[in-house]
Amino acid sequence: MTHPNDPALRSFIPVDAESDFPIQNLPYGVFSARGLAPRVGVAIGDYVLDLWELEQDGRLAVGQDGPGVFVADTLNPFMALGPKVWAATRSRISELLRHDNGELRDNEALCRRVLVPMKEARLHLPIAVSGYTDFYASKEHASNVGIMFRGKENALQPNWLHMPVGYNGRASTVVVSGTKVRRPRGQLKPPGADLPSFGACRRLDFELEMGAVIGQPSPMGETLTEALAEQMIFGFVLLNDWSARDIQQWEYVPLGPFLAKAFATSISPWVVTSAALEPFRRQGPKQDPAPLPYLQQTQPHNYDIELEVALRAAPMSKPARICRTNFKYMYWSSVQQLLHHASSGCAMNVGDLLGSGTMSGPEKDQRGSLLEISWNGTEPVELASGITRTFLEDGDSLVMRGWCQGNGYRVGFGEVEGTIVPA
Amino acid sequence: MTHPNDPALRSFIPVDAESDFPIQNLPYGVFSARGLAPRVGVAIGDYVLDLWELEQDGRLAVGQDGPGVFVADTLNPFMALGPKVWAATRSRISELLRHDNGELRDNEALCRRVLVPMKEARLHLPIAVSGYTDFYASKEHASNVGIMFRGKENALQPNWLHMPVGYNGRASTVVVSGTKVRRPRGQLKPPGADLPSFGACRRLDFELEMGAVIGQPSPMGETLTEALAEQMIFGFVLLNDWSARDIQQWEYVPLGPFLAKAFATSISPWVVTSAALEPFRRQGPKQDPAPLPYLQQTQPHNYDIELEVALRAAPMSKPARICRTNFKYMYWSSVQQLLHHASSGCAMNVGDLLGSGTMSGPEKDQRGSLLEISWNGTEPVELASGITRTFLEDGDSLVMRGWCQGNGYRVGFGEVEGTIVPA
Repeated sequence: MTHPNDPALRSFIPVDAESDFPIQNLPYGVFSARGLAPRVGVAIGDYVLDLWELEQDGRLAVGQDGPGVFVADTLNPFMALGPKVWAATRSRISELLRHDNGELRDNEALCRRVLVPMKEARLHLPIAVSGYTDFYASKEHASNVGIMFRGKENALQPNWLHMPVGYNGRASTVVVSGTKVRRPRGQLKPPGADLPSFGACRRLDFELEMGAVIGQPSPMGETLTEALAEQMIFGFVLLNDWSARDIQQWEYVPLGPFLAKAFATSISPWVVTSAALEPFRRQGPKQDPAPLPYLQQTQPHNYDIELEVALRAAPMSKPARICRTNFKYMYWSSVQQLLHHASSGCAMNVGDLLGSGTMSGPEKDQRGSLLEISWNGTEPVELASGITRTFLEDGDSLVMRGWCQGNGYRVGFGEVEGTIVPA
Repeated sequence: MTHPNDPALRSFIPVDAESDFPIQNLPYGVFSARGLAPRVGVAIGDYVLDLWELEQDGRLAVGQDGPGVFVADTLNPFMALGPKVWAATRSRISELLRHDNGELRDNEALCRRVLVPMKEARLHLPIAVSGYTDFYASKEHASNVGIMFRGKENALQPNWLHMPVGYNGRASTVVVSGTKVRRPRGQLKPPGADLPSFGACRRLDFELEMGAVIGQPSPMGETLTEALAEQMIFGFVLLNDWSARDIQQWEYVPLGPFLAKAFATSISPWVVTSAALEPFRRQGPKQDPAPLPYLQQTQPHNYDIELEVALRAAPMSKPARICRTNFKYMYWSSVQQLLHHASSGCAMNVGDLLGSGTMSGPEKDQRGSLLEISWNGTEPVELASGITRTFLEDGDSLVMRGWCQGNGYRVGFGEVEGTIVPA
């Protein structure tokens, strides 16, 4: 049988070379359409394949533990079934969608039932987020922020090269692309002010991140191996870690960012599986000093994923690109982040989301936040004639995209979009 | 009808004056016994009242939205029904347990079904913890830690008197009293070491806290009023925020505590309701400077809860008290913590747990952590002849208790216990 990642595979459903969703991808999401309850779907070209209807029709089985997992409103029950079921399901869906398999292709009634035009589908938050942890794993981002606030000599904190520094984020406000983001209010104490005041954030920012979706649990008190950690990662989403820089500045010493990040975190509706990313696996940056043994990797765990951020101010007809970078620059891989996370005996759950931290690259146009792009507000970026930004304004829409470029096809993430509404 | 808080009320079940669970308390928990599935119960004297059996027998109704909430393995479905149902349920249970009501008292068969001796019951984690947030709201604790690490002049950080400083904790490792706590491993870089190493924590500590249990949600993007915040707090538990001081010291700059707190957080199995605590409501410490308007309180929101910590080293026959303090010293009340939490538009969920932060009092014997009791390891505390501690050792058992002292009765929390097992 042809491997689902084979670049030569084609689907009977026409898929554009620029589409994010060829047969090599098959990302999972949760959608609703036709007035029916949410169910699990897979993106293929401009369609969503309804896995619940496929299962009902006896075309897709997930084993004795799993019937009904596709009628859930999150991917968690399916993810909980584990890597063997993930692999078998991916193979079977690939087989059903092949151009040379008539089973679905030639069954017009079934096609009508299981293939929903994407423009008719409402996409939901794909996972129930058990815990949201945000890392700080791009050396370029950490260095940029460090230089800005502490100078070049002390750019990286002493611990940064020894561990994937991270903190617990707020899971309750992880939302799906398209959700409007209300400008947060909070305590502000601008430089020169004697006392803090409470008001609308004035330095509202985005952070370009990827999120690793944990699909298997690990019990409290136990640690992981590299192989186990890798198997626990079901897939990845695009992630915008919205940040209120001014709230953060006043609140974060000594216990870290809290409300400055708690008002919203947006993710893409499609979870691209680790299996689909396999051909795009790359060696990450050289780690010097060598990580401690519990963080060492015998396999490459980075991915070559092109990332792009565009910003549209209300008067603009289309968004202007303000950043183009790549996930491969990430210093601490998601596997290392997970190894570190569990190293103290912290239990991991199905549905945990690990944000990579802002993904900046080595070049100036590869900076993944307005804080860096505008160098702390001192260098406004021009979006269009007469329209500049240092931080986000009400009505601004921020769009992130990501894709792996194959030979003649893309394995893409779609987009994560958010528009700012007034406080 | 007599109010459920009336000090003169008595139950037909004999309750000792020193018992934590008189008819004025009626705390909720989740238990299993007799080989049956977990269900919701209420503690009364040495018994657990089985609410599911009561409901089955038609003695307790929670309205049309609620049937079956008592057969759940968490309190979340019951809490989600809201304050009116909480109040009605409390009244009805109080009525059923009164000494002068024969309905349950004289029905021997029903008594056998619904009253389970507590020693035969296994107590479970009472809530599904949606999010765990830990505050830092005791001025004495923050000052002690500040003096230790930054000197007397800079003891409190500049933001501390203006907001309840907090951070997101890890919900996945919140466990019920009695759960063994494995000594965590992690990156350590003791003073003088050139490089970090990975190993077992050497400075393992407890933190005496109370946890506020959120029983009603608030949507993303909305803020709260004092009255609303108060109504959202279902009740309180004792909470031990186990801490690895050496892991914390190396990891926490700049994003706050992470793995040093992620290996375990223990809570008491009984949730004492805000309703039961009402007679013990007290004015908190004077707040100077006055809080910003969004944090101002028109009502007192502190409680007079006696708190005690005892430590038993393996060779000791019983624990030795090492701290005695009171919840009334908390500078920022749980209502203020919740107001602050939601102030940026952060969504709150049923089952959120807000740790108060370590509850130290003004006196030396009122310190709520070994870090403070042993003054950063420099002043060992004597537990028994020849047995001293600076931090926790393997085999040590830590027990916290808390109670409100009424006239002739106590509204108590039971205990939260944890024993350290080797790394």
